[in-house]
Amino acid sequence: MNRTDTAVLQTPPRPVSLPRRLALDAGDPQAFRRALRSYFSETFDCTESLFRTLDCDEAWYQRPITLRHPLIFYYGHVATFFVNKLMLTRMIGERLDPHLESIFAVGVDEMSWDDLDDAHYDWPAVERVQHYRDRVRSLVLELIDHAPLALPMDWENPWWAIVMGVEHERIHIETSSVLIRQQRLEWVRSRPEWPACPDSSPAPQNSLVEVPAGHVRLGKPFDSPRYGWDNEYGHHEADIPAFEAARLLVSNGEFLDFVKAGGYGNDAFWDEEGLRWRDFAQAEHPSFWVRKGAQWHLRLMTQEVPMPWNWPAEVNCLEARAFCRWKSQESGLTVRLPTEDEWQRILATSDWQLNEELPANANLYLEHWASPCPVDRFEQGAFCDVVGNVWQWTETPTYPFEGFKTHPIYDDFTTPTFDERHNLIKGGSWVSTGNEAEPDSRYAFRRHFFQHAGLRYVVSDAPIVSEASHYETDELVTQYMEFHYGAEYWDTANFPKALARLAIAAMGEGPRRSAMDLGCAVGRSVFELARHFEQVVGVDFSARFIDQGVALARGDTVRYTVTDEGELVEYKAAKLADLGLADTAARVQFWQGDACNLQPRFTGYDLILAANLIDRLYDPARFLHMVHERLNAGGLLVLASPYTWLAEHTPRDKWLGGFKKDGESWRTLDALKALLGAHFEMAGAPREVPFVIRETRHKFQHSLSEVTLWKRVR
Amino acid sequence: MNRTDTAVLQTPPRPVSLPRRLALDAGDPQAFRRALRSYFSETFDCTESLFRTLDCDEAWYQRPITLRHPLIFYYGHVATFFVNKLMLTRMIGERLDPHLESIFAVGVDEMSWDDLDDAHYDWPAVERVQHYRDRVRSLVLELIDHAPLALPMDWENPWWAIVMGVEHERIHIETSSVLIRQQRLEWVRSRPEWPACPDSSPAPQNSLVEVPAGHVRLGKPFDSPRYGWDNEYGHHEADIPAFEAARLLVSNGEFLDFVKAGGYGNDAFWDEEGLRWRDFAQAEHPSFWVRKGAQWHLRLMTQEVPMPWNWPAEVNCLEARAFCRWKSQESGLTVRLPTEDEWQRILATSDWQLNEELPANANLYLEHWASPCPVDRFEQGAFCDVVGNVWQWTETPTYPFEGFKTHPIYDDFTTPTFDERHNLIKGGSWVSTGNEAEPDSRYAFRRHFFQHAGLRYVVSDAPIVSEASHYETDELVTQYMEFHYGAEYWDTANFPKALARLAIAAMGEGPRRSAMDLGCAVGRSVFELARHFEQVVGVDFSARFIDQGVALARGDTVRYTVTDEGELVEYKAAKLADLGLADTAARVQFWQGDACNLQPRFTGYDLILAANLIDRLYDPARFLHMVHERLNAGGLLVLASPYTWLAEHTPRDKWLGGFKKDGESWRTLDALKALLGAHFEMAGAPREVPFVIRETRHKFQHSLSEVTLWKRVR
Repeated sequence: MNRTDTAVLQTPPRPVSLPRRLALDAGDPQAFRRALRSYFSETFDCTESLFRTLDCDEAWYQRPITLRHPLIFYYGHVATFFVNKLMLTRMIGERLDPHLESIFAVGVDEMSWDDLDDAHYDWPAVERVQHYRDRVRSLVLELIDHAPLALPMDWENPWWAIVMGVEHERIHIETSSVLIRQQRLEWVRSRPEWPACPDSSPAPQNSLVEVPAGHVRLGKPFDSPRYGWDNEYGHHEADIPAFEAARLLVSNGEFLDFVKAGGYGNDAFWDEEGLRWRDFAQAEHPSFWVRKGAQWHLRLMTQEVPMPWNWPAEVNCLEARAFCRWKSQESGLTVRLPTEDEWQRILATSDWQLNEELPANANLYLEHWASPCPVDRFEQGAFCDVVGNVWQWTETPTYPFEGFKTHPIYDDFTTPTFDERHNLIKGGSWVSTGNEAEPDSRYAFRRHFFQHAGLRYVVSDAPIVSEASHYETDELVTQYMEFHYGAEYWDTANFPKALARLAIAAMGEGPRRSAMDLGCAVGRSVFELARHFEQVVGVDFSARFIDQGVALARGDTVRYTVTDEGELVEYKAAKLADLGLADTAARVQFWQGDACNLQPRFTGYDLILAANLIDRLYDPARFLHMVHERLNAGGLLVLASPYTWLAEHTPRDKWLGGFKKDGESWRTLDALKALLGAHFEMAGAPREVPFVIRETRHKFQHSLSEVTLWKRVR
Repeated sequence: MNRTDTAVLQTPPRPVSLPRRLALDAGDPQAFRRALRSYFSETFDCTESLFRTLDCDEAWYQRPITLRHPLIFYYGHVATFFVNKLMLTRMIGERLDPHLESIFAVGVDEMSWDDLDDAHYDWPAVERVQHYRDRVRSLVLELIDHAPLALPMDWENPWWAIVMGVEHERIHIETSSVLIRQQRLEWVRSRPEWPACPDSSPAPQNSLVEVPAGHVRLGKPFDSPRYGWDNEYGHHEADIPAFEAARLLVSNGEFLDFVKAGGYGNDAFWDEEGLRWRDFAQAEHPSFWVRKGAQWHLRLMTQEVPMPWNWPAEVNCLEARAFCRWKSQESGLTVRLPTEDEWQRILATSDWQLNEELPANANLYLEHWASPCPVDRFEQGAFCDVVGNVWQWTETPTYPFEGFKTHPIYDDFTTPTFDERHNLIKGGSWVSTGNEAEPDSRYAFRRHFFQHAGLRYVVSDAPIVSEASHYETDELVTQYMEFHYGAEYWDTANFPKALARLAIAAMGEGPRRSAMDLGCAVGRSVFELARHFEQVVGVDFSARFIDQGVALARGDTVRYTVTDEGELVEYKAAKLADLGLADTAARVQFWQGDACNLQPRFTGYDLILAANLIDRLYDPARFLHMVHERLNAGGLLVLASPYTWLAEHTPRDKWLGGFKKDGESWRTLDALKALLGAHFEMAGAPREVPFVIRETRHKFQHSLSEVTLWKRVR
């Protein structure tokens, strides 16, 4: 075991030197090769340097926290990642070491604290992993030097795998630095290349700064000259009302008041999730605080120091929220964490800029210390530490911007976190480099998780606006979302759209006041009918279906997965504006209802569309007996059905047709004529309209729906 | 109640006059209208005349036997039939009386004796039905006189409905005459227009006549000038060895010896079905025999007469078989009923001809009596009564000829009897007219059923050859039969054929000795591969599937239904010869087998095709690990699969792909490369071949199968 005196660590500053970031628009291929060579190899070196803080086998092989692998895994993982992604873009055709690459493939990130990892691993020796890393380094350098390269460097470029690998490694340099900080102190050692900040003093007084109302426009274009992870691309805009924000990050000193006030023990300051975590963790103060008798110390990456009260408090999101609730009570103000949009407004109100010639005016890029520093050390306009020092929790669960799509070689980078349980952190920390250090980067962690992260609070009465990030995965709903709003397969035109057009055409110059789509499912025909009708009501028995239509009408992007093969999925999204239907939303309504027992309010329509409905009703004749009552005189009933009678939907004795009756074949069409004849005349001949429902990438239902038009004449 | 003296009935003979039959090739439309007018109206009159034998309400409304409706039903039914069929061919657009037509629509024919009808009907008054019949008569005559008519008179002609209606009515004149014969004697009366034969004497001695070996060619062409029911069309040929046949029908006198010998009580003479019927019916002698003290009488249609021992015995098929078994025991010969083919040979050996100018030389066409007559009354060459007098049971369960198809307006005339339980009767009876009286008509009844039918026995050691008539209705088997041998849907080429061609093309100039189709289902690819390979083995886990391939290889026509809508079906058939595959049958074998545990014998192949197999195996990796052992060096493995992994077929932990593995998307194709790499090289790029499986007329599975070719190199 090795312990190093704190004093030793205060010099020399910044020995670890890393290129800050990589320009993807470097003029010519040779220039790009040179830049990437440096970006890659210095990152690889940095990992080596970081892991030299591990002082014994236990440091490598014992898990610092039960929720993650031991550090040996991450040491190999960042190398294996290159091999995996290079295989996917076919820059290489063979693995280097299938055994090690299997061991190092799956990162265990962010497991829930109540979902303990009990897997057993037979970890290889450090030397073997070092040797493997050397081979990966040689391989990647060989590629960088000699592999064919065609610019531009965009998502489709096979070299994207290398850039992604470097950015991935930089993330792990940061997360490993956290794990080292969580490792037992006696197993790690300080290194001069990883110096802690020497400055420590009482906490400064925080204050509030006015942030004026403003417009936020987020999301990078796909031809951005900076690398991005999938969720950074696309488009998001919002108008943010004025609010106030703390000038400084909350310091250990400011946070101490909360601890002293019994904040950890007072349930009123904690939300339900916070209470569950607090009780599980038996937390009484920030995780890196160490009480020694009457004194507080702070655990840094490789050492413990007497508490630097003017450094930022490092807490998880749940603690940060509890602090804000306490602060609200203390101040009588509405104190809370900022949203992502509000953080961007704080950034816009600051004067933060990165000067390419000078050390960053922020505790960022490893350009100052291997630790936080005083919260008032880096002034960026009216604020300090808008970027750098430690990350800042936001109230925003991560969500995809408009136009979000997954990268083909890393489709699960972000999508698993679209679950309303991962909140964005902003601003970067002292160890953030590359993409991490970009103000538009969008990392998110479970709210109970620790990073080098703290908080800046805001005061605002504006409600917290969260964007929906949920991906609908219910198989039937997703099949119908794709059926109504997704791709066309087998050259078959969109069915609910085609039906609506057919119905509108059949209306001719007739009245266009009011239409109903009965059995509307996820609602495409409702919106299509509203291109023509003044009001359209969509009714379906399934609230799960209706919910999708309601969300679309609200202007939301509805996200859903479709099955690719087995459990693999593709990520899809639908939005009215993309279909030219945004204008129709004001004219539609959705209701849950039963076509066999329809509420009296649903009446007076010029058109009723019932598409693929009748063979799913429990009593279709009951519906057909009453449907004339819901139509205006002269109104049109449009029926479409593949007549797929199944006992699971319709008891056998309620089928309309598809059996022998009085000795003759009795088809559903015969039944429709018999049941509707009293009030309707059939308009035109029946026609068959095809439709396709995708089940997997390789399997589809391909059906024909018989469409009949019925004019109410009596 | 009215009873008529027997003596009165013996004169005058033959007052009921009916046109014998209708020519469909009558030169011009007017001639056809005239012929049909007479054919229709005299048939309609004949029904009226027949029902005048009913003497009281009970005769109309009480069921003569529990298995059938009362006679009032049949009186209305034959009229309603015209309306129903005219609706279907759209010669009329509206019903005459929907209520009556619903009552009279469904004939209750041939229920099993252990399947009693307990339906309740509220039958209309005779006068009301008479009035309805008058309206139908007027309607049909109006059509015959004035409806547009275009010749030829074939299946597609809407007028076919009228001809069918007349032939249908003639059948019911015969079956109603049987029901009247089964009605209580005191409720019916004799009529001079329905005279019984007056001749009665002791039975003549029967003898055997040599029938030389010969060829039989049956089945009428679809452009035949005579009306036919669906099962008479098509083609059947057979070579029949020489045999002997009784010169005479078995007379009541000859049958009495069987009765006297205790034949009804001796289980040894009865087969299992016969025993069940005999015990249920408590039969001790033929059904129409009436014992009066020591005397036997015979129930005729409207009277009882002292037993005419020289008339034919009238029995069901089970009694006829029992008689033959007794006769075999008595004679030491192999006595049995003839097959349909043998009956045709007897006909060909006779000199039966219908003289259009003279009364028939047969007790047929109602041209002599309304009863049977002595079995030696009508000599037709070496035999008597080859046609006429009473029908003759055969050993042949009815079956469809090659080229069988159902008529669009009467698709259940024959198909419900393709169940191996309905045996053909041949030759017609005294009341048979029209199509019934044609030697090529093919009526079949349950073997326990009574008609005016008896038997002529044959002596032959040739086995009874039965054609398969079973329609496969198992949903999965029928879907696969249609998939492999049926129509092409959505412009998608036949999949098993396309795969076989693809495999053969990939073989190039390679060896063509031996191939295996593993997971061959109903076997189309097996036969297609045998166009190229000297031997092809088809293996499937499902014996139900294999059975279809075996039957096809044997040269059978395999018949199956496909779902149209709900419970309605279409009738389909497949035969190798129709697909140009007859030659391949000698080179194929089918085996039941498990791809995951394949018997050692299956080895040494130049090609193995596994189409849509791997995602249906319980352990696909096991199959892939061993498959190289079954191929010759240089041999080709062709895999095709839509990769539809489902836990119901393959446990989740046995899926080859379709999940995240080591953090990356792991597709089935990745797994194939990994599993097969040790012994195979992939030949060419994967390609996707579409296939369609029909579920109903409106619903299809439309999938893509990824095809990969693997050459065994190690």
